[in-house]
Amino acid sequence: MLHRSMYLPVIETAFQEDLGAAGDLTTEAVIPPGASASAVLSTRQDGTAAGLEVAAAAFAYADGRIAFRSLCHDGDEVGAGQVLAELTGPARGILLGERTALNLLGRMSGIATMTRAVVLAVEGTGAAIADTRKTTPGLRALEKHAVRMGGGANHRFSLGDAVMIKDNHIAVAGGIAEAVRAVRASVGHTVKIEVEVDALEQLAVLLEDPVDVVLLDNMDPATLREAVAMVDGKMVTEASGGITLENAREIAETGVDVLSLGWLTHSVAQLDVGLDVDVHQIIT
Amino acid sequence: MLHRSMYLPVIETAFQEDLGAAGDLTTEAVIPPGASASAVLSTRQDGTAAGLEVAAAAFAYADGRIAFRSLCHDGDEVGAGQVLAELTGPARGILLGERTALNLLGRMSGIATMTRAVVLAVEGTGAAIADTRKTTPGLRALEKHAVRMGGGANHRFSLGDAVMIKDNHIAVAGGIAEAVRAVRASVGHTVKIEVEVDALEQLAVLLEDPVDVVLLDNMDPATLREAVAMVDGKMVTEASGGITLENAREIAETGVDVLSLGWLTHSVAQLDVGLDVDVHQIIT
Amino acid sequence: MLHRSMYLPVIETAFQEDLGAAGDLTTEAVIPPGASASAVLSTRQDGTAAGLEVAAAAFAYADGRIAFRSLCHDGDEVGAGQVLAELTGPARGILLGERTALNLLGRMSGIATMTRAVVLAVEGTGAAIADTRKTTPGLRALEKHAVRMGGGANHRFSLGDAVMIKDNHIAVAGGIAEAVRAVRASVGHTVKIEVEVDALEQLAVLLEDPVDVVLLDNMDPATLREAVAMVDGKMVTEASGGITLENAREIAETGVDVLSLGWLTHSVAQLDVGLDVDVHQIIT
Amino acid sequence: MLHRSMYLPVIETAFQEDLGAAGDLTTEAVIPPGASASAVLSTRQDGTAAGLEVAAAAFAYADGRIAFRSLCHDGDEVGAGQVLAELTGPARGILLGERTALNLLGRMSGIATMTRAVVLAVEGTGAAIADTRKTTPGLRALEKHAVRMGGGANHRFSLGDAVMIKDNHIAVAGGIAEAVRAVRASVGHTVKIEVEVDALEQLAVLLEDPVDVVLLDNMDPATLREAVAMVDGKMVTEASGGITLENAREIAETGVDVLSLGWLTHSVAQLDVGLDVDVHQIIT
Amino acid sequence: MLHRSMYLPVIETAFQEDLGAAGDLTTEAVIPPGASASAVLSTRQDGTAAGLEVAAAAFAYADGRIAFRSLCHDGDEVGAGQVLAELTGPARGILLGERTALNLLGRMSGIATMTRAVVLAVEGTGAAIADTRKTTPGLRALEKHAVRMGGGANHRFSLGDAVMIKDNHIAVAGGIAEAVRAVRASVGHTVKIEVEVDALEQLAVLLEDPVDVVLLDNMDPATLREAVAMVDGKMVTEASGGITLENAREIAETGVDVLSLGWLTHSVAQLDVGLDVDVHQIIT
Amino acid sequence: MLHRSMYLPVIETAFQEDLGAAGDLTTEAVIPPGASASAVLSTRQDGTAAGLEVAAAAFAYADGRIAFRSLCHDGDEVGAGQVLAELTGPARGILLGERTALNLLGRMSGIATMTRAVVLAVEGTGAAIADTRKTTPGLRALEKHAVRMGGGANHRFSLGDAVMIKDNHIAVAGGIAEAVRAVRASVGHTVKIEVEVDALEQLAVLLEDPVDVVLLDNMDPATLREAVAMVDGKMVTEASGGITLENAREIAETGVDVLSLGWLTHSVAQLDVGLDVDVHQIIT
Repeated sequence: MLHRSMYLPVIETAFQEDLGAAGDLTTEAVIPPGASASAVLSTRQDGTAAGLEVAAAAFAYADGRIAFRSLCHDGDEVGAGQVLAELTGPARGILLGERTALNLLGRMSGIATMTRAVVLAVEGTGAAIADTRKTTPGLRALEKHAVRMGGGANHRFSLGDAVMIKDNHIAVAGGIAEAVRAVRASVGHTVKIEVEVDALEQLAVLLEDPVDVVLLDNMDPATLREAVAMVDGKMVTEASGGITLENAREIAETGVDVLSLGWLTHSVAQLDVGLDVDVHQIIT
Repeated sequence: MLHRSMYLPVIETAFQEDLGAAGDLTTEAVIPPGASASAVLSTRQDGTAAGLEVAAAAFAYADGRIAFRSLCHDGDEVGAGQVLAELTGPARGILLGERTALNLLGRMSGIATMTRAVVLAVEGTGAAIADTRKTTPGLRALEKHAVRMGGGANHRFSLGDAVMIKDNHIAVAGGIAEAVRAVRASVGHTVKIEVEVDALEQLAVLLEDPVDVVLLDNMDPATLREAVAMVDGKMVTEASGGITLENAREIAETGVDVLSLGWLTHSVAQLDVGLDVDVHQIIT
Repeated sequence: MLHRSMYLPVIETAFQEDLGAAGDLTTEAVIPPGASASAVLSTRQDGTAAGLEVAAAAFAYADGRIAFRSLCHDGDEVGAGQVLAELTGPARGILLGERTALNLLGRMSGIATMTRAVVLAVEGTGAAIADTRKTTPGLRALEKHAVRMGGGANHRFSLGDAVMIKDNHIAVAGGIAEAVRAVRASVGHTVKIEVEVDALEQLAVLLEDPVDVVLLDNMDPATLREAVAMVDGKMVTEASGGITLENAREIAETGVDVLSLGWLTHSVAQLDVGLDVDVHQIIT
Repeated sequence: MLHRSMYLPVIETAFQEDLGAAGDLTTEAVIPPGASASAVLSTRQDGTAAGLEVAAAAFAYADGRIAFRSLCHDGDEVGAGQVLAELTGPARGILLGERTALNLLGRMSGIATMTRAVVLAVEGTGAAIADTRKTTPGLRALEKHAVRMGGGANHRFSLGDAVMIKDNHIAVAGGIAEAVRAVRASVGHTVKIEVEVDALEQLAVLLEDPVDVVLLDNMDPATLREAVAMVDGKMVTEASGGITLENAREIAETGVDVLSLGWLTHSVAQLDVGLDVDVHQIIT
Repeated sequence: MLHRSMYLPVIETAFQEDLGAAGDLTTEAVIPPGASASAVLSTRQDGTAAGLEVAAAAFAYADGRIAFRSLCHDGDEVGAGQVLAELTGPARGILLGERTALNLLGRMSGIATMTRAVVLAVEGTGAAIADTRKTTPGLRALEKHAVRMGGGANHRFSLGDAVMIKDNHIAVAGGIAEAVRAVRASVGHTVKIEVEVDALEQLAVLLEDPVDVVLLDNMDPATLREAVAMVDGKMVTEASGGITLENAREIAETGVDVLSLGWLTHSVAQLDVGLDVDVHQIIT
Repeated sequence: MLHRSMYLPVIETAFQEDLGAAGDLTTEAVIPPGASASAVLSTRQDGTAAGLEVAAAAFAYADGRIAFRSLCHDGDEVGAGQVLAELTGPARGILLGERTALNLLGRMSGIATMTRAVVLAVEGTGAAIADTRKTTPGLRALEKHAVRMGGGANHRFSLGDAVMIKDNHIAVAGGIAEAVRAVRASVGHTVKIEVEVDALEQLAVLLEDPVDVVLLDNMDPATLREAVAMVDGKMVTEASGGITLENAREIAETGVDVLSLGWLTHSVAQLDVGLDVDVHQIIT
């Protein structure tokens, strides 16, 4: 659940970057302080909206007197040209807030849009689409929110949410069993344990003392299918590595419970959203 | 020029996100506090490196005792599999710093790589490739550094660096001439003035009292060529809108001085960089 | 796992409080800037140490030239009069760091000491002793670390670590089954689900679709014993409410897996730790 | 006097701890965003209330639309079951703010309650009850406010408020007279000077050049009585060390002006305050 | 253009300094919490007002219920005794906000007043009066705003706004031409380039490849006149060094475009502004 | 006593202002990253040095490898041309740190210089020279340190250090006696009480129940002399209002204990300090 304390620091930083020390020189010179304007936020592409609450907060940060009315909700599918929100208020504030609002809204909607595409690709298989920690520094909560809005699920937010035993941990511990034992002795009863395996031999070892989730790393569909059969419901199965929009369905049809995808957040194509000011409505 | 005060806050925020309140549960359970390790950062793709200083700072933030040795510089072209840097130090710190370092290095190198591709595409035309303010909130300085490392140029960093008169400003001012006049009366002698025009008629008006830079918005190559001829060296010419890697050379060959591209920073494909820990070298 | 980024802000705030705007007037007037001193941190009571790394950081914040040598580890049982650490360095810095270091060390050791007492009280029953979110604002990571050092386990750190369905949630959802269903549809596969019940009838409903953990709230030993029998290993059982050092063993002997205790952190008796400066060693 | 800038940072930190990166997973899944609720804050024990303004601010931080109506004031004696405040507003916000509000209100009321107990114990003797700097890092202003609300007085807030010459200062200066002289030459005319003595011989020396306040450290009642007679009104007398709720009156009857007690703030038993949501009033 | 995010941090810091940890002891003791008052801000000297928006924000920070009505605008010339603004609201908040509001308003108005004096001194010569980066740390945006309000112009705000090649740069580069070449190869098309010269020989070299602005450092009027003639409109000319209120006109009459003055901001005489509370209006 | 935590935030803010988002464009273009240089800080005027530790920290913040050697101490009288400190290190860092270091050193030394002038003017009278709270927001601790270095004394740092009853407090309380009574009932035993009077009648009332300090506001020398006689050592006497460097001795000779001067900090003439880089020593 987003709380404003999660995105206000992002907005503050964005405004610091955009105002610089001198502030908006152009607007100061050209737009009278008392001018008011109307504007609409609309998409230039089909996609899934995410970040409207954040965009509203950006305009409110620019000028607290701007009225922002959302015409859709995060998670809604939107068509090219659709108006997402209407704004009215001081013209200077609307122009000042534009870039920050669009940068965040475009990025978040881009993530939601791509997530939705993958979710649709695996529809009916029962597999969930999840994100990773490969997020933009400072934007993790917002990007993971966008994944949820696209119909995806969130993998852990931090290293403290859940245990993930990887190859390096196993190597240091001296084996999967040893690593799992060390973890069980250390973490509390509210924490799930996941182990990454990259071969069926490792999986067999893990199944002697199953944990909550197994990450099947970089396996081809045939191996994944075999892995799912071996696990037989004793753990949640998660496939990761080498999954694309194109092969997602094939992976999902192996029966794995979750596909986790780093590129949902690390290689985002922004959804094109624009702000159109109704200049006839600018009252100076 | 990057100064550490520009990226330390990003690194701090990234660690807050990654540590959560509980810290790295897995590493705490499995890796002894005294264990040390060696590791290498290497690319899995061809590209242009950017962000090595930032990655080094991320590991230093994880544990001040980690020694980080860069084997290349920002701006170097690197091949798949090339080692970018070597690390030695406390194993817990290396594992803890991994995700933040890779998220930043991958993103910055992705931007440098794409910038380089466009720069090469226009090579010999004399046109420069520039970024915009369509950057990720919080990462503007880092993303613009990456553009430079890819051979690109920086457009303004903030609304206070230079004046940019756009359609809304012109509409409110009552015309290009009026807007330019207002700006000249307002800003100091160290600030450049740029005006956005989307038609040759507007350009003709602007040429009656030329400013420093003209932004030729969304014009096709033929129109751009005509615009360049009209300007005849009296202003720097900048093309923007609808420019892709594919058509960049055609645009550049119209004679414009600068091509500015929002997608260099708003729709980044991360360069795949990985950390390989030498587990045989982990000393517990 | 503590990382210095988790306690540095606490130390900074403590110094702001203690320095005020004028700084240490007494020390400035009386202790020459070049004076150096030796000192020891020692307990005045038996207990369990916790917070040595934090105390060291407090003195380092006071003056980076202070050498701090721990003579025991967090989690060690210590006797009255035992020296926990030795310090040498600028006398002004040692006096300045004293109060912050002792406030943190005393509080953390107090928590570890009480946790250890309860852990010993239930020894052999197999029950774990856990904390809650009833921690001091700003000190959650440190207080939960102290619980671990006393041999306790950590319950969730934040509302985002694990699901806890309580009476209000059940009332709004329209029943336990409905609430559990809503949660399953919402959270990712790395998150555990806990449900609070205060009567065996509720437990029976929950057992139709068991979750990861059940919180048995404010039940007497007889009811707890019955509940544990009903659960029969299908969920982790956690008792909470009305548990004291005196009755903890009786509760643990009912067979519950975990006892969670708010007063471990919300009603702490500080362990008495003091700093003794060797005045004969002050060199001015 | 509390100003909101003194407790807002505490509340922000508490919410960061409680929200984590993922926010309140349970409430997000179960409570509809539009649901509203009523609730009351009430005590489960007799005591003295402190922190109502802070609790109100915590709920306002959770959701600015929550209406909070205090039914008593800080400093009021309250009985078990008494309603301290009523709340109405978005159900999600009320549940989200609960823990932070209770953690602060419970701690502050616990301090006020214990302070009141000691104040009553010495009633009629003319002695004041004061706190120390042994407060929780980050909460000094709140804890000292709570002491005032319990009828106690505040000792200095920081090392810059007043001078306190202790044994180490005396040893370095070469004697009480030398230390006092150094301080008089250094501090301004708005600063009080206090000297700690632990024997009547030291007191005799100090009386040759009296300061504002003398701290009589760890003296038994007979010695204190003698010290008070020696001072004879020339300085304010403050007793400290080894004072308990049980022996406070005996100490106070020696005629000392002030008893200062570290445990008022360093070993707090929280007052049990709870939030009861009227589930029949939850409107979704 | 000032945005509230530019001065809120200044106000927060000022209140931290002024509240200390204990808050306003006097007001707490004497002024009842419910008392309200009226007050006026008025000048005790002739001058130019600047900072009214900042003063309003200071009082709003003190207590959000204070109503602040400006009776003049930044940049207005004001006479001794003129009322700048009226306030009504909680008496405690008005007294608390007084010092911070006056410290900022007095300083900003002092800068505006002195700037206006110099602007008037050069009236009719066509020369502009500009500031420098010799501003008070933390107050640069406010002090440069004050210069604008006094009729002055802003030189660059930061090292990233414009290039300024000084003697050290020239020495390292091996000459003016080399330094300019290096800069042209490095900075983007939206950045102006300024070069500092202290002799006409240097100016002659620079004129072989003119930049945007030349800084004529510490030249006497005769030399300046010669320099202006040499430049002949090819660059903006800026005089700096040794300029006083007394000789400003003589300098301006040499024909230079800009006079830049460090002392406008580094050696400010505060304009005397006071707050008068109407005590008959205090309602308790 | 200055602690680095008091000035590091000032330095951080100053660098943010000076670096902007783009950093030092000129230095980046012209000075090679590996170049090192030597430089000296020296005065261009006679005065009293203050802020050397702060200047050193500014250069360390610019680049941690810069070696800074002070050749004098805060409080030393320095002649025009005297070298205050020598620096060696990376040339980029030295140029980057220059402005921030000089802005702080120049301001602090300016304050110390003027304070020293007044202190010398009253030499032999026994009167102390004190500052006020009329300091630059964000710089209070530094400016008050500079006053001490000039031989002055510090008045209270914040509203929480000492009580100051002014006209508005007296009006609300209903008289001096009532205000004093309210304060005595409210503040602790470590806080001094000062009352401002502007007429001898008020002083007579105050003398019926004297406090620690009396502020004699805006009185002429004859009245001050009478006031001092009336007080007769029962309170510390402080004169304020209308005191200049010229009339300070006359005021001091009335026998008042303290003269407090707002303009020591609110109307500062910076001491001219410069940085000279030895360009022959720049090694690239």
